[in-house]
Amino acid sequence: MTQKAIFYHAGCPVCIEAEQAVANALDPHRYDTEIVHLGKQPARIREAEATGVKSVPALVLDGMPFHINFGASLDALK
Amino acid sequence: MTQKAIFYHAGCPVCIEAEQAVANALDPHRYDTEIVHLGKQPARIREAEATGVKSVPALVLDGMPFHINFGASLDALK
Repeated sequence: MTQKAIFYHAGCPVCIEAEQAVANALDPHRYDTEIVHLGKQPARIREAEATGVKSVPALVLDGMPFHINFGASLDALK
Repeated sequence: MTQKAIFYHAGCPVCIEAEQAVANALDPHRYDTEIVHLGKQPARIREAEATGVKSVPALVLDGMPFHINFGASLDALK
């Protein structure tokens, strides 16, 4: 059974580097990874915040937020 | 062929959470993941710094450093 992974980003260079390296490195047999661009899907900022995401890029695994380097704060995307 | 992944940590709660979630989520068919505890292996701090690691926990994929949340700065481990 696969678990849900959500990678939140905003298209910034730091985000794209993290997406290509970290999000793509997850085991596809265990994780179903969704990529969410919060700049294009601002309606999902609230959901990201509720999970504890403070900045992008961030990877949420099993409901736990992991901020990867720093691209932009969520506040800057509103 | 597997690529090298190095997860640097220092045993802190933030580090352990990141290790259990992110480091363990990597695809084992593509990544050979080494876990390095810099508190127990201080001789490797220099190597981590040379890769661009500033704090732990950090994951180095293909030579690129990704800081995951924040546990401690490398300076605090010296």
